[in-house]
Amino acid sequence: MPEDNKLEAIRHSLSHLMSMVIEEMHPGTGLGVGPSVDDGFYQDYDLAQVINPEMLPKIEKRMRELIKRDIKFEQHDVSFEDAYEFYENDPYKTEMINDLKAKGETQVSFYKSGDFDNLCAGPHVVSTVEINPEAFKLTRISGAYWRGDEKNKMLQRVYGVAFANKDDLAQYLERMEQAKLRDHRRLGKELDIYTTSQLVGTGLPLFTPRGTVLRDVMSQYSNQIRIGYGFEKVWTPHITKIDLYQKSGHWDKFGEELFLVTSQETDDKMALKPMNCPHHAQIYASRPRSYKDLPVRYLETTTDYRDEKTGELGGLDRVRSLTQDDSHVFCSPEQVEQEISNLMATASELYSTIAMKLRVRLSYRDDSDAYLGEKTLWESAQAQLKSAVIANNLEYFEQDGEAAFYGPKIDFMATDAIGREHQVATVQLDFVQPGRFGLQYTDAEGNLQTPLMIHCAILGSIERFLSVFIEHTAGWFPFWTAPEQVRVLTINDTVLDYVSEITAILDGITLMKPIKYNDIRYKIDDRNESLGKKIREAANWKIPVQLIVGPRDKDNREVSVRTQSGEEKLKLDNLADYLHKL
Amino acid sequence: MPEDNKLEAIRHSLSHLMSMVIEEMHPGTGLGVGPSVDDGFYQDYDLAQVINPEMLPKIEKRMRELIKRDIKFEQHDVSFEDAYEFYENDPYKTEMINDLKAKGETQVSFYKSGDFDNLCAGPHVVSTVEINPEAFKLTRISGAYWRGDEKNKMLQRVYGVAFANKDDLAQYLERMEQAKLRDHRRLGKELDIYTTSQLVGTGLPLFTPRGTVLRDVMSQYSNQIRIGYGFEKVWTPHITKIDLYQKSGHWDKFGEELFLVTSQETDDKMALKPMNCPHHAQIYASRPRSYKDLPVRYLETTTDYRDEKTGELGGLDRVRSLTQDDSHVFCSPEQVEQEISNLMATASELYSTIAMKLRVRLSYRDDSDAYLGEKTLWESAQAQLKSAVIANNLEYFEQDGEAAFYGPKIDFMATDAIGREHQVATVQLDFVQPGRFGLQYTDAEGNLQTPLMIHCAILGSIERFLSVFIEHTAGWFPFWTAPEQVRVLTINDTVLDYVSEITAILDGITLMKPIKYNDIRYKIDDRNESLGKKIREAANWKIPVQLIVGPRDKDNREVSVRTQSGEEKLKLDNLADYLHKL
Repeated sequence: MPEDNKLEAIRHSLSHLMSMVIEEMHPGTGLGVGPSVDDGFYQDYDLAQVINPEMLPKIEKRMRELIKRDIKFEQHDVSFEDAYEFYENDPYKTEMINDLKAKGETQVSFYKSGDFDNLCAGPHVVSTVEINPEAFKLTRISGAYWRGDEKNKMLQRVYGVAFANKDDLAQYLERMEQAKLRDHRRLGKELDIYTTSQLVGTGLPLFTPRGTVLRDVMSQYSNQIRIGYGFEKVWTPHITKIDLYQKSGHWDKFGEELFLVTSQETDDKMALKPMNCPHHAQIYASRPRSYKDLPVRYLETTTDYRDEKTGELGGLDRVRSLTQDDSHVFCSPEQVEQEISNLMATASELYSTIAMKLRVRLSYRDDSDAYLGEKTLWESAQAQLKSAVIANNLEYFEQDGEAAFYGPKIDFMATDAIGREHQVATVQLDFVQPGRFGLQYTDAEGNLQTPLMIHCAILGSIERFLSVFIEHTAGWFPFWTAPEQVRVLTINDTVLDYVSEITAILDGITLMKPIKYNDIRYKIDDRNESLGKKIREAANWKIPVQLIVGPRDKDNREVSVRTQSGEEKLKLDNLADYLHKL
Repeated sequence: MPEDNKLEAIRHSLSHLMSMVIEEMHPGTGLGVGPSVDDGFYQDYDLAQVINPEMLPKIEKRMRELIKRDIKFEQHDVSFEDAYEFYENDPYKTEMINDLKAKGETQVSFYKSGDFDNLCAGPHVVSTVEINPEAFKLTRISGAYWRGDEKNKMLQRVYGVAFANKDDLAQYLERMEQAKLRDHRRLGKELDIYTTSQLVGTGLPLFTPRGTVLRDVMSQYSNQIRIGYGFEKVWTPHITKIDLYQKSGHWDKFGEELFLVTSQETDDKMALKPMNCPHHAQIYASRPRSYKDLPVRYLETTTDYRDEKTGELGGLDRVRSLTQDDSHVFCSPEQVEQEISNLMATASELYSTIAMKLRVRLSYRDDSDAYLGEKTLWESAQAQLKSAVIANNLEYFEQDGEAAFYGPKIDFMATDAIGREHQVATVQLDFVQPGRFGLQYTDAEGNLQTPLMIHCAILGSIERFLSVFIEHTAGWFPFWTAPEQVRVLTINDTVLDYVSEITAILDGITLMKPIKYNDIRYKIDDRNESLGKKIREAANWKIPVQLIVGPRDKDNREVSVRTQSGEEKLKLDNLADYLHKL
């Protein structure tokens, strides 16, 4: 059995063991779903008694005892008749059996472990001895509606994590501890990056001045690199008649995920845009194009709206207002490799600058007929994608059958400072949409041809990117991105004239890397407060460079530079140089 | 009689004279509305025969004949009974009489001129001799629904213009001719600034790369000046639950002008934001504020959506997607004057840079009780507004009773190159909204106080601003705003190495005024085409600086600089200097 499958069997078996214990403690408990998930498992319970966190160690202890008893998991098939009878008064299991019947199954699968017999498709371990009793932990409890539908009863969901061995568990728990400290929701508030308002609504964060600097700096960087490759900025409105999506084909696929917009003055049926390609295609279509004009490359940092379930929203990682650093290339088939390579180089530069390691997934078509566009075009494009990835020295893996129906794609995964991998940028080829909109260019022979389209966002959703970036940096943003890059702290008022000299130097500095024209963002803390308090506050704000200035510094024409890594004296004459090198 | 009223009487009388002629030519013609308007008059006709432009001179000629006959306009009152009888078979007049009756009038007013007797409230001239027969002109014909409702019959509307004397008419016609040449709809297409798409919808322009440069440059300038006064950028989503507007009070006032947003996943009742103040108030409210933090100044260039009637939309002057360079100051009452003064200075700098003369209207409250907020607060604020206007040397006039119910305001009017005045920026005080949202700050004594709010946009709607700016400049944009600032035109391929030297110089130039960090936007035209063709194309694009480079220029290390005002030779060594001085 491959390691992953074995771990899945262990996790799923632990979920059964947990139910055995709860059933033992509270006979007649109703069982909702109880799958294995990433890192562990959970099980939903219908139980009058509230399960509270204090009870979890007791349940764990009893589970360990059961594990040591070498209990076997035995699969057996049961007729629908017997299954219904077995679960006669259980509404949850009865509904699950109904579903299996509706699917056309002829019988249902049960797993028996000890006295506990349970409707279940597996997989499970053969015996509990395969489970390391020290490598699992019950972690938390939450409410969960039966079938995720808030019209149904709320059940109690108990979560656990489980690994092959104790070290893996310890590592995981340590990482969770780290993640908690870095939680972007907490830091977002502490560092005054964004806020939310119940009057505005869930999943619609508002960005404060500090957060807006982060948004602008990152978007500027992402754009700056692409502008170097010939991209040009465009601007499109956030709404459109749904005619646009009927023509593009998005209406049939994503119509239900759109926010609909009603005009009270007209009969226009409209929607908020959930993506920008159809709008950009309209700009391409606004003039005749020649092969000499290609590639046409558009760039727009703009906000898309997606009608996510509010239960899934929170923080910046999942929002209803997604600002994309979106771009679209319209080019000929021969131009694909170079264009892809430019976008790879853009992503590589950006993520290496923020110290995140990238790897990519190449998603190809398979042999089925689920794909539109000529097969030779697909094969050539897939080969060009791969060449571009190799040319950019990116770690990659390939997956057949994972492409969108309209073209192959490249997904970028970035690893953060505590080892978690996040999907970030995407490059998507599109053989279909240009044809749907009748986009054309005149080739060298004077014939009309249809261009192909490359969709690409480097940061992806800026909101989601920031959720990753805040946790990756733990709020100690790299100097060039920090909302407040420098704070000058005075020891007393005798140094105010010297502070003017310092600010004159700061005002004269314009950093050119990684983003161009970065005038230093600084503040002066010359309040009549103790230095200790000023330092504590600056540290709480995680200001990357704190310049402490006292009478002796003034006499020596020095400053004390405090950073995350310590404190050092610096000659005033060297300050500009020092900041340029950060 | 004041001049304005006299002109109104002349225009209205001309409308009657036109109807006399049409009635003479086509007895039994139905008459819709026929008012005097800015610069002239119009009249709607229900007539089987199509009135075409060729007929207008003939109608004008006959009107001139009538004018010379010294026809008197005589008012007489008529009972409702007689009025209904007079217009027995006329549905339009009958409806108008109905309206007067519904209003509670006791009789109706008619004006008789010659044999032509017409339901009319006036005013009119006493005799046609007061009308200068050479100072009017019939200008155009359009369709117009009866009462502006597309469910009603479409009538034929004939427009005329009229002035006190021949010179005024000639001046007006010349200005119209100028305006036609400068029409931003035509230039917007010719200069590839924006496009529209029937799939996206009316009033929702999409901006091409060239248009996006104009948007960005102007918004950057407007922001840059304010950032110098301590404003900070924020970011807010384009949608909100309507709860926000219920709390702010906007829902009651503007609810019908909003685009409503429907979530298919939730029951949230939402809307597209038509303004940004309530969103910004949420950011202010997200932290406790002390008097030491005030003024808090937020800035956001963001797009608002207003559900305008599509019949009123066209070009950029009236759109449904309005991008505002919006800002809000939260401050104490004593800080108003300084803040207003900063905003005045911002507007003055911006409009003087683009050579538009500003004057302002100060809108005050009157003695009625239609206003919220303490009267002493109003008086102090109005005095501060006026001081700020005077301190900034702005031409101004004052109007009592023109303030919004929540505070006095300043409207800025800018005059364009052909003498038309456009309303642009606004500064609006607000004594009400901060209280509605419960905004607070702690004053020096530790008591909680409510700040007041100053709303201000400098460009206003960027789309509308651009419609004015394009017509003001006739598409010859000032150097710093031009989408393509410089184009290098080669005479032949022998100069390509020399062109590299030129582009190296251009790449090295970063202009700092009026906007900082303006890298030169240039293109090379080294196609194998005739110089004449290249120059024609560059002139059509209205590129402000065209650098023509031939073999002799290369030998002499010169370039020929072509601008709107002519051509001159320039030493290559002086090129950077030349561009810096533009």
